Amino acid sequence: MKVLILGAAGMLGRKLALHLQRVGRIQGHDISELVLADVIAPSQDGARCVEVNITDAGQVSALINERPDVIFHLAAIVSGEAEANFDKGYAINLGGTQNVLEAIRGQQAYCPRVVFASSLAIYGAPLPDVILDDTATLPLSSYGTQKSLGEMLVNDYTRKGFIDGVSLRLPTICIRPGAPNKAASGFYSSILREPLAGQEAVLPVAESLRHWFASPRAAVGFLAHGAEIDTAALGPRRALCLPGVSASVGEMLDALERVAGPKARALVRFEADAAVDAIVSTWPKAFDPQRALAHGFVAEASFDQIIQTHIEDELGGVLPSF
Amino acid sequence: MKVLILGAAGMLGRKLALHLQRVGRIQGHDISELVLADVIAPSQDGARCVEVNITDAGQVSALINERPDVIFHLAAIVSGEAEANFDKGYAINLGGTQNVLEAIRGQQAYCPRVVFASSLAIYGAPLPDVILDDTATLPLSSYGTQKSLGEMLVNDYTRKGFIDGVSLRLPTICIRPGAPNKAASGFYSSILREPLAGQEAVLPVAESLRHWFASPRAAVGFLAHGAEIDTAALGPRRALCLPGVSASVGEMLDALERVAGPKARALVRFEADAAVDAIVSTWPKAFDPQRALAHGFVAEASFDQIIQTHIEDELGGVLPSF
Repeated sequence: MKVLILGAAGMLGRKLALHLQRVGRIQGHDISELVLADVIAPSQDGARCVEVNITDAGQVSALINERPDVIFHLAAIVSGEAEANFDKGYAINLGGTQNVLEAIRGQQAYCPRVVFASSLAIYGAPLPDVILDDTATLPLSSYGTQKSLGEMLVNDYTRKGFIDGVSLRLPTICIRPGAPNKAASGFYSSILREPLAGQEAVLPVAESLRHWFASPRAAVGFLAHGAEIDTAALGPRRALCLPGVSASVGEMLDALERVAGPKARALVRFEADAAVDAIVSTWPKAFDPQRALAHGFVAEASFDQIIQTHIEDELGGVLPSF
Repeated sequence: MKVLILGAAGMLGRKLALHLQRVGRIQGHDISELVLADVIAPSQDGARCVEVNITDAGQVSALINERPDVIFHLAAIVSGEAEANFDKGYAINLGGTQNVLEAIRGQQAYCPRVVFASSLAIYGAPLPDVILDDTATLPLSSYGTQKSLGEMLVNDYTRKGFIDGVSLRLPTICIRPGAPNKAASGFYSSILREPLAGQEAVLPVAESLRHWFASPRAAVGFLAHGAEIDTAALGPRRALCLPGVSASVGEMLDALERVAGPKARALVRFEADAAVDAIVSTWPKAFDPQRALAHGFVAEASFDQIIQTHIEDELGGVLPSF
């Protein structure tokens, strides 16, 4: 079983690679080779690390010519950059995906499992309070448009028998490890991550705001499970909403207080930011992801558990003392 | 007001050109120039007819450099051909649309109205009996995928201010003039067109099968109206389901009998075709197109009227005697 991760240098790609090395198997077969590719070559022991420009069809073909059995396609530029740089967003997020799919189609007698990382950005307001598997999508960003285009190509290439594709609409990943960033969604992680490290954080929106979350560990589990499931039962609809935890900011902070005490919560300071609020208040609040649940995708059961996962995976299981 | 029709040599393109020449105005302004473009140059008096290969970005740019105020984008290969020739379908139906949008984006201070002809092929089973404006799409053909991709690009290029786009999900056009064709939907026209010309026709499906129709005249009206409407009120959702007539085959034949007599109906012979049935039985049965109705799109009120329109527009207002 040969496995290729495209976009392996990102946070999820790195964690996915470690997970696959740890479990060592996909679909009951040993992983004989793990290839990690990104625009700057990843660095990971026990894997072959490759530099690839996904907008270069020749470079992509060279990777696909090795005929990996499973391809995780996580390579993308993020929403802010895709919005600011229209050409780059389409070149990488759409054109890159087309290069991958076309390189696969160019092979003979080859139909790899392709797990495509999609996004909640394919949804746009107005939305119901609970999104169902068949709720219509309406991207309101170029990034969301590009992810939605990718999903539809995955469906069509699958229907034609060129790939065996699965698109996973990942919840917002929380708590993201690392430094604070300027993404509109960044506060969702920083209002937990910083207090858990004994540092102050700013909350730019009201505590009533609700959104849909899964931990990095759960997201890695989704991706890995996407390589395992029996896709025949999915029929032609290869895009899946995923399980997660629906939580308001207030509920997130309540969970923080339960796990780490009132002093941790007191480190979060409210400072309204209308620009951030305007973006994130249109995002999905909750899902009823019946199809993914029926196919065995599992997320955390509570926000407390999401915080506990962060403490285990990022803080060595230890809370700082206050 | 300069107007460009891409795909002007097709049935709808020809009728649209004649309609625009007849009314002479769009958005209250005289049409100063009408450019008709297709892969083989159209032929029509009073218009400039141009040969263009829509997969050639340079040729498309040359047309767009003239900065038409309104662009009707009807250029496409049809569903059967897009399914049989994957490369050609994507090159023309997706790549061609991208060429048009990119050529427009390449201009400075230019934001033309773009009316994009979409299709019911963006929907796929399972479907509700009545499709609403926000029913999720699920293309089950490469053609439907390509039209859906086009709609999403029209949304995104509109949102970014590069175009002022409208995508129209045309009902099945009935009664198509001309010779019978091999399209799966061909019988919907031939079971009426041939009897109205005193000729036999074959019905390959049960009379209970229901579908969604508009006449060629109504379809031309939709396209022309798409150039007239106030798009600001559409917001970021630029794709519209359109009004039409929901009719079962039995109701279509009842209408035929009312308009042309029992001898006309007797010319239709049932001959089951499971392959055709398998395709068309998954198609939309009816719509409740509230948004298009609110924006003033108008279709026929009955199937009798659809037949009457054919008699007026194609048969000189005269039924053959039996």
